[in-house]
Amino acid sequence: MISVAVLGASGRMGSHVIEAVNGAPDLELAAAVDHDGSVADAARAGAQVAVDFTVPSATEANVHALIDAGIHAVVGTTGWTEEALLRVEEHLKERPELGVLIAPNFALGAVLSMRFAAAAARYFESVEIVELHHPDKVDAPSGTATHTAMGIAAARAAAGIGPSPDATTHDPEGARGAVIEGVHVHAVRLRGLVAHEEILLGNPGEQLTIRTDSFDRVSFMPGVLLGVREVARHPGLTVGLDGYMAL
Amino acid sequence: MISVAVLGASGRMGSHVIEAVNGAPDLELAAAVDHDGSVADAARAGAQVAVDFTVPSATEANVHALIDAGIHAVVGTTGWTEEALLRVEEHLKERPELGVLIAPNFALGAVLSMRFAAAAARYFESVEIVELHHPDKVDAPSGTATHTAMGIAAARAAAGIGPSPDATTHDPEGARGAVIEGVHVHAVRLRGLVAHEEILLGNPGEQLTIRTDSFDRVSFMPGVLLGVREVARHPGLTVGLDGYMAL
Amino acid sequence: MISVAVLGASGRMGSHVIEAVNGAPDLELAAAVDHDGSVADAARAGAQVAVDFTVPSATEANVHALIDAGIHAVVGTTGWTEEALLRVEEHLKERPELGVLIAPNFALGAVLSMRFAAAAARYFESVEIVELHHPDKVDAPSGTATHTAMGIAAARAAAGIGPSPDATTHDPEGARGAVIEGVHVHAVRLRGLVAHEEILLGNPGEQLTIRTDSFDRVSFMPGVLLGVREVARHPGLTVGLDGYMAL
Amino acid sequence: MISVAVLGASGRMGSHVIEAVNGAPDLELAAAVDHDGSVADAARAGAQVAVDFTVPSATEANVHALIDAGIHAVVGTTGWTEEALLRVEEHLKERPELGVLIAPNFALGAVLSMRFAAAAARYFESVEIVELHHPDKVDAPSGTATHTAMGIAAARAAAGIGPSPDATTHDPEGARGAVIEGVHVHAVRLRGLVAHEEILLGNPGEQLTIRTDSFDRVSFMPGVLLGVREVARHPGLTVGLDGYMAL
Repeated sequence: MISVAVLGASGRMGSHVIEAVNGAPDLELAAAVDHDGSVADAARAGAQVAVDFTVPSATEANVHALIDAGIHAVVGTTGWTEEALLRVEEHLKERPELGVLIAPNFALGAVLSMRFAAAAARYFESVEIVELHHPDKVDAPSGTATHTAMGIAAARAAAGIGPSPDATTHDPEGARGAVIEGVHVHAVRLRGLVAHEEILLGNPGEQLTIRTDSFDRVSFMPGVLLGVREVARHPGLTVGLDGYMAL
Repeated sequence: MISVAVLGASGRMGSHVIEAVNGAPDLELAAAVDHDGSVADAARAGAQVAVDFTVPSATEANVHALIDAGIHAVVGTTGWTEEALLRVEEHLKERPELGVLIAPNFALGAVLSMRFAAAAARYFESVEIVELHHPDKVDAPSGTATHTAMGIAAARAAAGIGPSPDATTHDPEGARGAVIEGVHVHAVRLRGLVAHEEILLGNPGEQLTIRTDSFDRVSFMPGVLLGVREVARHPGLTVGLDGYMAL
Repeated sequence: MISVAVLGASGRMGSHVIEAVNGAPDLELAAAVDHDGSVADAARAGAQVAVDFTVPSATEANVHALIDAGIHAVVGTTGWTEEALLRVEEHLKERPELGVLIAPNFALGAVLSMRFAAAAARYFESVEIVELHHPDKVDAPSGTATHTAMGIAAARAAAGIGPSPDATTHDPEGARGAVIEGVHVHAVRLRGLVAHEEILLGNPGEQLTIRTDSFDRVSFMPGVLLGVREVARHPGLTVGLDGYMAL
Repeated sequence: MISVAVLGASGRMGSHVIEAVNGAPDLELAAAVDHDGSVADAARAGAQVAVDFTVPSATEANVHALIDAGIHAVVGTTGWTEEALLRVEEHLKERPELGVLIAPNFALGAVLSMRFAAAAARYFESVEIVELHHPDKVDAPSGTATHTAMGIAAARAAAGIGPSPDATTHDPEGARGAVIEGVHVHAVRLRGLVAHEEILLGNPGEQLTIRTDSFDRVSFMPGVLLGVREVARHPGLTVGLDGYMAL
């Protein structure tokens, strides 16, 4: 039985995490900590692992306090800089038995599809991305699609693969979409959709398509629980949930 | 048994039509006419229906000669102007029993999906199009996608429906694609693909997707044979194969 | 402005209908009627149209009371027999200006896709259905998929089309799925899905795919509002929402 | 420049391989060997790598002759038993610098999707497979789908994951399809299709879909060329192309 504290307990993500921990037979909720509480509450309650879904201005201090308290940390709060990550790495040298996971995305499907796309990209002549979201989204393309495109571009560069073939000479309206580091990315906005991504890879006579559909915030919970269960087995700082996944 | 002449018999489409006619138990090939032949050959051979896949510079004269010869015409050659169509309509008044079908597209799936998309467009808040082709295509978006978008736009205008919702304010690379009469159209180019189109319609909590995949020129043959079998039952000029389809 | 009463106001569907009516600028809620209320309340409140999402044991009496009260009826309650429909038709002869719509399905995407599938089925050699639902569903295939298969089978029979080609001679585990009036139907059950259906049509070199995704009960509301707005323009009994749709 | 011999040169696969080798700037065709030729011809021509697409009755002898001649072997011929593989492994001990690749499938998309599915299977509650083929196929489900299901089942068993949830109690027609080691597999047969597979993985609020489409035998050529280029860098026996892929 792993004893878990949740920091940011009353936030949208935090309340889902509490529900998920309560529903898992191998986990128990030690403490639900909010604005008026602190890491000390988690320590007093005997938490072995803390999940942090707080705010960018609080998360770094939380992680350092957790390290001092000897508690493993699973962090979903965004806003981490390279410098902040280095400070955590440095601090962890004092407590080499502790694990800290900082992950920008806990959706297993999204994490896996980015890894799969990067692994496959060098074996196909062509690759493009179509992301599809609800029409209230203000930016295009999505951060996930941009991140996926960059991973694909890096994998192709490392393998010495050139850009995807494209004979387009006439495209007055911009139908070919955005080009992110050489990868075409298309953004669809449609009422009723939530968050979806399709990665298309093509060779002569063959296609490989990797698609993720996210309908709900609960989709992050299997990834959070994976982090909680694995963090003690991965001492040191890990960035990205795929570091815990056997691929 | 319907007796069929093929004009443009040695062309890429013509040779497929000959094969399709020979393979159909209710049709017989009366004449395969090429550059050195003429409509007179078809008439002498007793053709009841002629299929014209010739060239834009020849097709109008062929149709008028077929009308004079009392032969129904199924025409897949492109390049017809409004004026040329009116001249055929005028000529047909002399032979009110004859049918002429002039169709820009014989792919049943494409014809149906355009009709379905136009019929559905007024019932959905959002609609977008993704077309996907091989990377040797020089223009984007495809003519079929542009045509589909125009049909959708006309249907929505007729029903008093405004544009699809779109909160995008930040799209520096043009990921939202082309906008054809208010309909967003995205063009994917991928090695291994042939010609594909996906029409996405969205309402709160619901999606309708209509997709066509064309892999081969043989996909036009069921449509051509439908034209051959139906043309005698549709006197006068019909533009577009959907005029013969019970929808 | 159309004045609307909702019967079954506190039910799951009823409460969505109230919200949808309140959100529509051209509709106003005249009465929200529940167990302890009656059609008389709707009449007193001046309702022009009543929406009935009650229970099978109450809905027929409600419709007859609405006819007597001179109120158009839009009915989503299930359980109507052929005889019950005939009794409504008979009653409506006394009030030829009134409209009654009884619809088993208000999801526009599902209604349209069934119509499209039936229209397309005669033009393709092959047709199969894949339905996909959450894994808590106890029956397979879904009622909608069965209904779709029967519509396709009827359309093919009417056009004199035989069964889809199938050379399968070795299928020890039943991978080819259910056969509903000659149409193969496959049922996928997957955590995270809600209700989805894919109709696949195939000819040589060409595919047509029609897919609907339903994520939420709100997806029925555009269809209910369509019924409310159109019922006065369609005197007599109409069964099925597609009777109001311009296809 | 790698010098390549093709054994089985006049077969369907062999002729594609010759074309692919001729089209690759870093490869040169040393010998095209057929029924009346032998491995000795390949040796005399100075081949460094031989590709074997012959017949089950000839392939094992070919591989042993290639080892004796000091030529690396890339083998696509089927019919290898465990015992035959052991004999090759034993023989290679005499020539530890030589590589032999024996691969049942050279379609990169299919190889990758099987690997990805096995990697992802432990992270999702539900997984099912839909395979789609032309209607002239006599067996269902396809060998690839069966193989994929077995890989998924093994990965889930290794991770201690139970079967996918399924509440179905009423399925009189068998719509839920085949069950291969606990994984549901559905086989669609449709005119116009070639060979396609969709692996669906589901968690609460999230889906991951991996799809491969194979249209043509040319789709195997990138995999064959990958084998040719890599075989010298992988001494010993490798079974399965994924052994050469960086995943």
